[in-house]
Amino acid sequence: MLLSIIYLIAISAEAMTGALSAGRRRMDLFGVVMIACVTALGGGSLRDILLGHYPLGWVKHPEYLGFTVCAALIATWVARWMHHFRRTFLVLDGLGLIAFTLIGCSIAREAGHALPIVLIAGMLTGAFGGVLRDILCNEVPLIFQKELYAIISLLTGAVYLLLLHWGVADATAILCCLGGGFAVRLLAIHYRWEMPKFVYHDEVH
Amino acid sequence: MLLSIIYLIAISAEAMTGALSAGRRRMDLFGVVMIACVTALGGGSLRDILLGHYPLGWVKHPEYLGFTVCAALIATWVARWMHHFRRTFLVLDGLGLIAFTLIGCSIAREAGHALPIVLIAGMLTGAFGGVLRDILCNEVPLIFQKELYAIISLLTGAVYLLLLHWGVADATAILCCLGGGFAVRLLAIHYRWEMPKFVYHDEVH
Amino acid sequence: MLLSIIYLIAISAEAMTGALSAGRRRMDLFGVVMIACVTALGGGSLRDILLGHYPLGWVKHPEYLGFTVCAALIATWVARWMHHFRRTFLVLDGLGLIAFTLIGCSIAREAGHALPIVLIAGMLTGAFGGVLRDILCNEVPLIFQKELYAIISLLTGAVYLLLLHWGVADATAILCCLGGGFAVRLLAIHYRWEMPKFVYHDEVH
Repeated sequence: MLLSIIYLIAISAEAMTGALSAGRRRMDLFGVVMIACVTALGGGSLRDILLGHYPLGWVKHPEYLGFTVCAALIATWVARWMHHFRRTFLVLDGLGLIAFTLIGCSIAREAGHALPIVLIAGMLTGAFGGVLRDILCNEVPLIFQKELYAIISLLTGAVYLLLLHWGVADATAILCCLGGGFAVRLLAIHYRWEMPKFVYHDEVH
Repeated sequence: MLLSIIYLIAISAEAMTGALSAGRRRMDLFGVVMIACVTALGGGSLRDILLGHYPLGWVKHPEYLGFTVCAALIATWVARWMHHFRRTFLVLDGLGLIAFTLIGCSIAREAGHALPIVLIAGMLTGAFGGVLRDILCNEVPLIFQKELYAIISLLTGAVYLLLLHWGVADATAILCCLGGGFAVRLLAIHYRWEMPKFVYHDEVH
Repeated sequence: MLLSIIYLIAISAEAMTGALSAGRRRMDLFGVVMIACVTALGGGSLRDILLGHYPLGWVKHPEYLGFTVCAALIATWVARWMHHFRRTFLVLDGLGLIAFTLIGCSIAREAGHALPIVLIAGMLTGAFGGVLRDILCNEVPLIFQKELYAIISLLTGAVYLLLLHWGVADATAILCCLGGGFAVRLLAIHYRWEMPKFVYHDEVH
C-alpha cells in the first residue's frame, strides 16, 4: 500500500525534525530520541487517545518506534550537513503532513465517526506531533502562530471526504489528495502564506 | 435542563477567554480556535480520558465544537470592545466554573466512582480547561499560583454530594450549589481571596 | 509485598520533590498539591492511558491520592530543614525510580505487551512523573537534558526481563533489579554520569 510506504518515510522525516529541535535545546541523546518519537508518533497517539482507539499504533507495531529511534540517531550524526538538505526536509515534512492526514481521516472514518470528527482526526494526526514537540521543548506551538499548516490538513481531509462522497474510489481519492495537498503545502512554503493574526493587548483576565 | 443551557453559555464564555489568551500571544486564527476549544472542552476531555469514559463529549456531540469555534471567532471580532465587558466575563467564567463542576461530579457519580474521584472529576471539568490553555500558551497555570478557583470547585462538589447524601433532590441540590458556589466565586474575586503561597528557594534536586 | 511498601515510600518521596518544585515557582497550596500528585502519580497514569489500562491506579485506589496530598503538605511544612535531607531525598527518589520501573514493567508484562512496550511502560512509570511536573512548571524536562535517569530505568527493565527469561523467580528478579538499579543510580549521582549531548545551531525549520 502506497500510504504505508509514505507513512514510514513520513515518521522518519518527522523524527529527524524532532531530533533537530531537541538539538537546538541542547538535549542529551535520551531527550533527542524522546522528542523524535513524540514528533513522529504523538499526533496519531493523541488522536487514538481522544477517540478511544486502542491499542495505539506503536503499541501494536513497536517496529515504528525502532524506525523513529534510528532516524533520530541518524539525524544527530548527519546534523552538520543538514542545512544542505533544508529543502528536502521541508518537502518530506509536507508529504508527511498530507499522508498523516489521510491516514487519520481513514481510521476515524472506518470507526464510524461524524464528519467533523473525521476532519479533526486527520488534522490531529498530521499536525499535532509538532504541537506536542513544541510543548516538550517549552515553546508556544509553531503552528498556532505561523505558517499555513494545519489548515491545509483540514482542507485536504475535506476534499478527501468530498471525493469519497462523490463515489470516487478510495485509492484514487488518496492519490488526488496526496498530490493536491502536497502542492498547496509547497505553494504555502514558497509564497509564505499565513493565516491572519489576532493580536490582543488589554488584560481581561 | 437548566445545566445544559448554562453549559452552552459556559463553553462559549470559556472559548472567548481562551481566544483572548491566544490573542495576547499573537496567535493566528487557527491558534485562536485551537486554544478556545482546549479552554472550553479540555477540562471535560481530560476528565473522560482519566476516567476512561468514551466517547468524549465533543466526539459524541460535534455541535459543541461548532459553538466554541463561533464563540472564538466572535471574540476576535469584538475584542476591541472587550474591556467594557471585563466584569461580564468574570461573571460568566465563574458561572461556568460551577456549572462544569456540577456536570463533572454528576458524570463521575453516575459512573459509580468513589467520592474523592467524584470531587476530582468535578474539579478537572471546572478548572483544567484553563490549565491546558496555559500549558499551550507556555505559561505556568494561573490557578496553581493565584486566585481562589479550583478550591471553590472542590467545595461546591463537596456540598453537592453532601446535599444528595442528606436526601435532597438532585435538581434542588444543583440549584443550591450553583447559587452558593457562584456567590463564593464572586466574593473571592471581589475581595481577592487567595490560598497561602509556598515559596521555596534552596536547590534540592 | 515488598514492592507495595516501596511504592508507598516512593510516591511520598516523589510528591515531596514535586512540592518543592512548586515552591520554587511560588505556587499556592493548591498548585503544590497538584504538582505533587502529578509528579507522584502522573507517570503511572500516562502509562495506563497510553496502554489503555483502565481504571487508573489512583481512580481504583483513591488512598494513593491521600498519601501524596499528605506528603506534599508535610513537605511545605518541613521545607526550611529540607536542605539537611538533600541526600536522603536523592536516595528515596532513586529507589522510587527503580520501584516504579519494575511495577510498570510487571503491569505491562501481565497485560501481554511486546518486550519493547514493556520496557517503555517501565520507563514511563519511573521517569515521566518528573516530565509532567516540568511541563506544568513551564520548564524543559530535566531528564531530557541532564542526568542518567531514564536510561537506568530502561536498563533495569531489560535486566529484569532477561532474568525472568532465564527462569529466575519473579521475587528474586525484582530484588536483584532493585539492588542493582539503585546502586547504578547512586553511582550516576555520585560521579555525575551523563548522556552525550546533541547541540544543533542551524535553523532548519
